[in-house]
Amino acid sequence: MIRTHDAGTLRKESAGTEVVLAGWVARRRDHGGVVFLDLRDASGIVQVVVREDELAHDLRSEYCIRVTGEVRVRPQGNENPEIPTGDVEVTAAEIEVLSEAAPLPFPLDGSQEVSEEARLRYRYLDIRRPERAAALRVRSQASYVVHDVMREHGFLNVETPYLTRSTPEGARDFLVPVRLQPGHWYALPQSPQLFKQLLMVGGLERYYQIARCFRDEDFRADRQPEFTQIDIEMSFVDQEDVISVGEQLVARLWSEVLGYEIPLPLPRMPFLEAMDRFGSDKPDLRFGQELTELTGYFAETPFRVFQAPYVGAVVMPGGASQTRRELDAWQDWAKARGARGLAYVLVQPDGTLGGPVAKNLSETERTGLAAAVGAAPGDCVFFAAGARRSAQELLGAARLEIGRRLGLIDESQWSFLWVVDAPMFEDDGEGGWTSVHHPFTGPKPEWAATFQDDPGNALAYAYDMVCNGLEIGGGSIRIHRAEVQQRVFDVLGISKAEAESKFGFLLEAFKFGPPPHGGIAFGWDRIVTLLTGGDSIRDVIAFPKTASGGDPLTGAPTPITVVQRREAGIDAVPELPDGADGAS
Amino acid sequence: MIRTHDAGTLRKESAGTEVVLAGWVARRRDHGGVVFLDLRDASGIVQVVVREDELAHDLRSEYCIRVTGEVRVRPQGNENPEIPTGDVEVTAAEIEVLSEAAPLPFPLDGSQEVSEEARLRYRYLDIRRPERAAALRVRSQASYVVHDVMREHGFLNVETPYLTRSTPEGARDFLVPVRLQPGHWYALPQSPQLFKQLLMVGGLERYYQIARCFRDEDFRADRQPEFTQIDIEMSFVDQEDVISVGEQLVARLWSEVLGYEIPLPLPRMPFLEAMDRFGSDKPDLRFGQELTELTGYFAETPFRVFQAPYVGAVVMPGGASQTRRELDAWQDWAKARGARGLAYVLVQPDGTLGGPVAKNLSETERTGLAAAVGAAPGDCVFFAAGARRSAQELLGAARLEIGRRLGLIDESQWSFLWVVDAPMFEDDGEGGWTSVHHPFTGPKPEWAATFQDDPGNALAYAYDMVCNGLEIGGGSIRIHRAEVQQRVFDVLGISKAEAESKFGFLLEAFKFGPPPHGGIAFGWDRIVTLLTGGDSIRDVIAFPKTASGGDPLTGAPTPITVVQRREAGIDAVPELPDGADGAS
Repeated sequence: MIRTHDAGTLRKESAGTEVVLAGWVARRRDHGGVVFLDLRDASGIVQVVVREDELAHDLRSEYCIRVTGEVRVRPQGNENPEIPTGDVEVTAAEIEVLSEAAPLPFPLDGSQEVSEEARLRYRYLDIRRPERAAALRVRSQASYVVHDVMREHGFLNVETPYLTRSTPEGARDFLVPVRLQPGHWYALPQSPQLFKQLLMVGGLERYYQIARCFRDEDFRADRQPEFTQIDIEMSFVDQEDVISVGEQLVARLWSEVLGYEIPLPLPRMPFLEAMDRFGSDKPDLRFGQELTELTGYFAETPFRVFQAPYVGAVVMPGGASQTRRELDAWQDWAKARGARGLAYVLVQPDGTLGGPVAKNLSETERTGLAAAVGAAPGDCVFFAAGARRSAQELLGAARLEIGRRLGLIDESQWSFLWVVDAPMFEDDGEGGWTSVHHPFTGPKPEWAATFQDDPGNALAYAYDMVCNGLEIGGGSIRIHRAEVQQRVFDVLGISKAEAESKFGFLLEAFKFGPPPHGGIAFGWDRIVTLLTGGDSIRDVIAFPKTASGGDPLTGAPTPITVVQRREAGIDAVPELPDGADGAS
Repeated sequence: MIRTHDAGTLRKESAGTEVVLAGWVARRRDHGGVVFLDLRDASGIVQVVVREDELAHDLRSEYCIRVTGEVRVRPQGNENPEIPTGDVEVTAAEIEVLSEAAPLPFPLDGSQEVSEEARLRYRYLDIRRPERAAALRVRSQASYVVHDVMREHGFLNVETPYLTRSTPEGARDFLVPVRLQPGHWYALPQSPQLFKQLLMVGGLERYYQIARCFRDEDFRADRQPEFTQIDIEMSFVDQEDVISVGEQLVARLWSEVLGYEIPLPLPRMPFLEAMDRFGSDKPDLRFGQELTELTGYFAETPFRVFQAPYVGAVVMPGGASQTRRELDAWQDWAKARGARGLAYVLVQPDGTLGGPVAKNLSETERTGLAAAVGAAPGDCVFFAAGARRSAQELLGAARLEIGRRLGLIDESQWSFLWVVDAPMFEDDGEGGWTSVHHPFTGPKPEWAATFQDDPGNALAYAYDMVCNGLEIGGGSIRIHRAEVQQRVFDVLGISKAEAESKFGFLLEAFKFGPPPHGGIAFGWDRIVTLLTGGDSIRDVIAFPKTASGGDPLTGAPTPITVVQRREAGIDAVPELPDGADGAS
């Protein structure tokens, strides 16, 4: 090493020591012949005092320097209790400029609002900021914890391929042309799902991987074209075994990174209860404001809108005092979510109901409503009516919005739970069924024989881990019998040809004694975001991409040249295998 | 878990215990009313005894079953000392078939030679074989050791992007079209080199990653289109620091996986010495047969072939007794390597020289030759003459071939060394220079000011780790000053435009106070192959590809459909950025 000490480790006890430090000029202050530098390295910051002007005169922010000097206790009254090295300073005898820095595109001290575009373009400057570097350190520390926990539980770390089979149905697969087989393409995997199940067929029994996954799609809010998951699969298990490993993993992460002990076992909530009470399959339990179902209450209602398969409500405490404009804004909010609007009544101080909906209700309905939904005078009651699932989801979103606006959410709290017993299938809106999880998800044992007869009510042997209203992991016990898998395909309307094309090799493997198995995958970027208290997964990814998939730093993606196209075989017509040319 | 015990853990002390096991039928033997099953799970094998025929009658190889029964000590004389559970057996009371197995495409007991194509097509059966599974277990164990060592040394695990910038010069990059930006493409990285250097500019100081790398090229012998490296980079270091971390890493791997203590520090050999003595930049030191340089010896030779810039020799002990056909085969061997042939003399029992070359030499040359090369009567001396580098490489290859044929290599030995002081540049055969490592490799300090004046002799601050004649790691201290980098580009004939296109973002980053830094990358597949004693890196990759890049299991790569092409934007003409349309 070209230094003897890490800057951030110097303390009073080091006084009198001759040290060589190396790092960056974080700040410079000139005080009549004496220059004070904050020298920053990965360990922290220490103050360097330069008394000879020629040593310091050309040093600017973010110069990389090497300082030889002596550690001294700071003169009394000059201590800085804000930093761990605040009792000492280093008197420079010699300063070597290791490399110079051009004027910075933005200051690194957080004194200025900087656009995300600029921060990503100069990501290497952005991550010099201690809080940004700290997020990457937490990510690293957390990865060490993952390896520890999985090792202790006897899991094998196995790397599965990133160059895999493309299928016509894999609509969000990234495709990769292959030079050696012109006209043939790989796909980048959306997850290692098929391979981890093959490893179970192969008898490895306990697999995990911190796996990169790829998805070529519109990047809503907090998505990335490549993301990372903790991927886990186990054989000869039932749901309790996978849940137990998952709980121990997050418990250790929160304990070792944050010093917070998650109470285990985590509570569990059936999917339908979560929808009924919170209008979400990933409920945030850090506040109340549960939904009230009013379908029965309004069974005889004269109000057309409430003559629906489901009517529900959520209460906004104090919401009756919202201005007309605020109430209108709720309508826009609901429309932005695809709803027609958000019906409401305002509970007046005298207990009577105001707002446009109230007059459509019967006298009886008006009288009992506040009590039925638990609203007090001064509250606003929002309603949704229609198909159960979508109406509940609208109320669930309103609930979260109420929680945020009113500061009802205790941000210091951690709320973990499992959402279990999800339906196997949901209506695909076109008269068919689609998988709630994925088509390898097994039925709960009590539905194993009959799920095909009542797909809308059949329950999956699946479990999602939720933290503070975010889904951070999800998994299931898989189907391992060909006969069960075939019935699932039948319900989903997946033809033999499509099944063969998409995952024929897995079905083939299942002919050779597949073990009962199940697993889970955790969203690693999101978990690390929670552990760091960040807002976006982009904060915990070293080199993230923008919402359109671009990297402002490298300029990726780029057009390619004619030569690149030719060499990569992009426009080659693939040779058909023997006997497949149709001419025989 | 649906079992109570792991099959391979049962011992005499377990006798009398009621157990539930789950695993696969590895073998079945019927002995007049009693059936013996070898039940295999991830922990090993135990013998199951089935006395009631109806329990066992339909069980075939690789059925997945669950056995309930009692552990008993085997009758005296029936113990099997070959397996850890050989003192016991489990008497089955109940057997549940968890899933059936179709007739196997090949037996898993190793009794039959199976083509690699078949083994890869049914990889999930191949990895049920204990020796194949063991290789994956070693890989996992070794990965844990890597994380331990890097953590102990304060390294951060950082994930760098796999979707990166494509450049016209990146001739072996895999390309990836981007749906959201039709006509624009990512590239998959051949290594995280640029990103790890950016992390150093970003101040992270100590980075590592078990990184997947991608290269779209012809797969010679033991290459894969995706492979894994242990990627390491450090700031404020010199060569000794990186070498020390690298040594501790391999020492721990060999110690923890194999129980072998590598003596540290590893020996070092300058690149030119390795070429002179062993004709290789990755010498196998497990045997002698060093090359002898004879350029001076033949300075006055009348033999035209030896009037060359370099003449050298290697001795094959006992080689004089080779048949004419064997000697001819050496000529074919040399021609297959691109040489004209391999000159030789045979040292006769009386010390005189035979073979076609001898008569071309002068009397004096003949007389002293055996002594000059250290050959004894009965030996064969092979020669190469021509350009120093290529002639030495031919002799180096001959030396290895001699070692193999004569069994001179002690396979039980581990021979590690560093090859250091490699040239910065080598002749590109077209009058220019090319980097021996890569263009960011720094000069040795004593060449820093002058390398451009004598590129052929300038030495790089680089180091390769060699084990048993294989390069397992390589790295360097990087250039961190723009001015030095520019001089390297000048020597390499890399234009400003090309440098900008390929790594403009790195050069830009280097304007902002880059620290001195260096690193190393280890070939992880190869290291694990050495640790497992395997022949091919394909044995230590869970799902490897064939030499043409195909995966017989999934059928990847495949042609794609017109719809896929359109959706992925493969044929879209990219919109040019504003002002770049050439029409202004």
